[in-house]
Amino acid sequence: MADFVVTPWEVKGKIDYDKLIEKFGTSRIDKPLIDRIKSITGDLHLFFRRDIAFSHRDLDAVLNDYESGKKFFLYTGRGPSGKMHIGHLLPFYFTKWLQEKFGVNLYIQITDDEKFYIKEKSFDEISSIARDNMLDIAAVGFDPDKTFIFLDSEYIRNMYGLVMKIAKKINFSTVKAIFGFNNETNIGMIHFPSIEIAPTMFEKARCLIPAAIDQDPYWRAQRDIAEGMGYYKAAAIHMKFLSPLTGPTGKMSSSDPNTAILLDDDEEAIKKKIMKYAFSGGQSTVELQRKLGGNPDVDVSYQWLSYFLEEDDKKLEEIRQDYISGKLLTGELKQITIEKLSKFIEEHKKKKEAADKDLKKMMYTGNLAKKMWEKIY
Amino acid sequence: MADFVVTPWEVKGKIDYDKLIEKFGTSRIDKPLIDRIKSITGDLHLFFRRDIAFSHRDLDAVLNDYESGKKFFLYTGRGPSGKMHIGHLLPFYFTKWLQEKFGVNLYIQITDDEKFYIKEKSFDEISSIARDNMLDIAAVGFDPDKTFIFLDSEYIRNMYGLVMKIAKKINFSTVKAIFGFNNETNIGMIHFPSIEIAPTMFEKARCLIPAAIDQDPYWRAQRDIAEGMGYYKAAAIHMKFLSPLTGPTGKMSSSDPNTAILLDDDEEAIKKKIMKYAFSGGQSTVELQRKLGGNPDVDVSYQWLSYFLEEDDKKLEEIRQDYISGKLLTGELKQITIEKLSKFIEEHKKKKEAADKDLKKMMYTGNLAKKMWEKIY
Repeated sequence: MADFVVTPWEVKGKIDYDKLIEKFGTSRIDKPLIDRIKSITGDLHLFFRRDIAFSHRDLDAVLNDYESGKKFFLYTGRGPSGKMHIGHLLPFYFTKWLQEKFGVNLYIQITDDEKFYIKEKSFDEISSIARDNMLDIAAVGFDPDKTFIFLDSEYIRNMYGLVMKIAKKINFSTVKAIFGFNNETNIGMIHFPSIEIAPTMFEKARCLIPAAIDQDPYWRAQRDIAEGMGYYKAAAIHMKFLSPLTGPTGKMSSSDPNTAILLDDDEEAIKKKIMKYAFSGGQSTVELQRKLGGNPDVDVSYQWLSYFLEEDDKKLEEIRQDYISGKLLTGELKQITIEKLSKFIEEHKKKKEAADKDLKKMMYTGNLAKKMWEKIY
Repeated sequence: MADFVVTPWEVKGKIDYDKLIEKFGTSRIDKPLIDRIKSITGDLHLFFRRDIAFSHRDLDAVLNDYESGKKFFLYTGRGPSGKMHIGHLLPFYFTKWLQEKFGVNLYIQITDDEKFYIKEKSFDEISSIARDNMLDIAAVGFDPDKTFIFLDSEYIRNMYGLVMKIAKKINFSTVKAIFGFNNETNIGMIHFPSIEIAPTMFEKARCLIPAAIDQDPYWRAQRDIAEGMGYYKAAAIHMKFLSPLTGPTGKMSSSDPNTAILLDDDEEAIKKKIMKYAFSGGQSTVELQRKLGGNPDVDVSYQWLSYFLEEDDKKLEEIRQDYISGKLLTGELKQITIEKLSKFIEEHKKKKEAADKDLKKMMYTGNLAKKMWEKIY
């Protein structure tokens, strides 16, 4: 029946996002909601302008809270299973925008325990991946006094009380139904939902989670129990996946480098990957492209410009029209993408090299981090 | 089929300890093994002399290690579900004897998380029960520099690494088979075996667990995975349950005070409970008792003298013979028990009142505790 699959561990096929909204029972981020955000924030992140942040739960309630002077907080995370690629990074930039516009606290969970449970890797390997991933995340440039980045394996000491209270409320039936766990699932993984849910209760305020929609099952589990525990149901903004290089099905994967641009790829690698693998919506020859034009809707280079590389809506529309008309050739479009992407990655690397100090603040010594290490939940 | 039940959460019926050995696949503590212990320790704890420590796993291997100069360590625990009764305390005295004779480290786990998961109590209630229980345990008088008493909810911070490694090795099939978990079991409880198993790997040495036999399922789960993880299979000494006041079936329960002497009972309560509830093996009248004699094997007063109140084997045998012959009346036997028990409880209360300092050492500041808080597993 389903020609696509979206779970926390697998994304396959060409995703029909409208069907996902229906299947997960979430709400579309529509024009009135976007206008309302703009009336608060003054401008709009391109994820809102370009229908990438497409679905939500209770975002309207979050805005109600904010407008009536109640605070909310942001929560997102990363499973450190390998090197990060460009598709992993962009939701963090969107999250940064939200933090800046609303001036709120942000909690970033690094699920080293989860990845240890499901990967054939030692905990030492996972730890070193986690360290590298956290530097990538810190490079995004969150407010170091309003952001707390934590490893589950470290912060468990402070949040175990809360984790226990959550675990007591969830039985095997529930995790079987929501996550598809079965007899072969290890007991670490079975317990893990209580750990991913815990940060939604770090403050007695509404928690807004910007994340790819594959993480939604956790928030469904949270919403079933939160109010009974005296907390708010988690609110969420769901983002579409960035197309893999290979075309508009599935999601990027670090373990298949031909589908992804890694954050440590050099210019040469970027060029080669885009030229060789980036799925094109253009025609097979220059002559045909000039005559018939290309299809930007399936063209990965265009999709990437739209997803993050071309901030300027006007310029993006020009590129689109030129591509459709045949004025812009596939090679030229790819060249634009290569240049912008190389610059993006180069800048990211510089920021990552300088991120150590900020990461330390976000983990241990910044205002929010210090407060979090003093708290016992 | 079974006319008795022994699980970590339920003990019912008249327990056939021989059948338990067969069912659990453990070994009998036989004469040669007891003689071997005596050749090392010089004397024998009454649990060894009186067949109360009746079953074991790998105790011979522990003695081999000890005799060849390798160290081992002791591990036991307590689930803080309510006030402690006399039946809870005695295994700790036996453990103390082992610690003294072999000069080894002892780890005592207080499973506040487990009890929170299975009881209809708040975590605050569990915490205050745990505090009271730990004072009872500290009153036993372990070596405060070689004993580490810890709450799961606190020490999770240091042992989570080890807990994760264990949890990754155990799947739902296993805990379903060993503990009878099902779809209704909460995910905290499903995960808990990894926490009860962790202390068996606190040292890279053999772990000897003196505990009532109902805890054995945990050690079975441990023994399946320990060697694959580079640790020893846990060794165990299994103890018989102290008979409830009401007779030789089931085990004592703090929630049914007529079956148990609580550690905070006063002399009046002890007297009343023994006189009113202690199941008697005697005859219905003085005349019949004089003529036919009593049956010490089912008489709870006699069982308690044998289990812990009468240290002197000769005196115990005299009491036994006098009871069988009818020389000793039920009332007189009960009187002996009341006196000895009152003295025991009175002394325990005094020790408990003075236990605060030692408990602090065993939890945080003693040599072993300090070392344990510096360790991250």
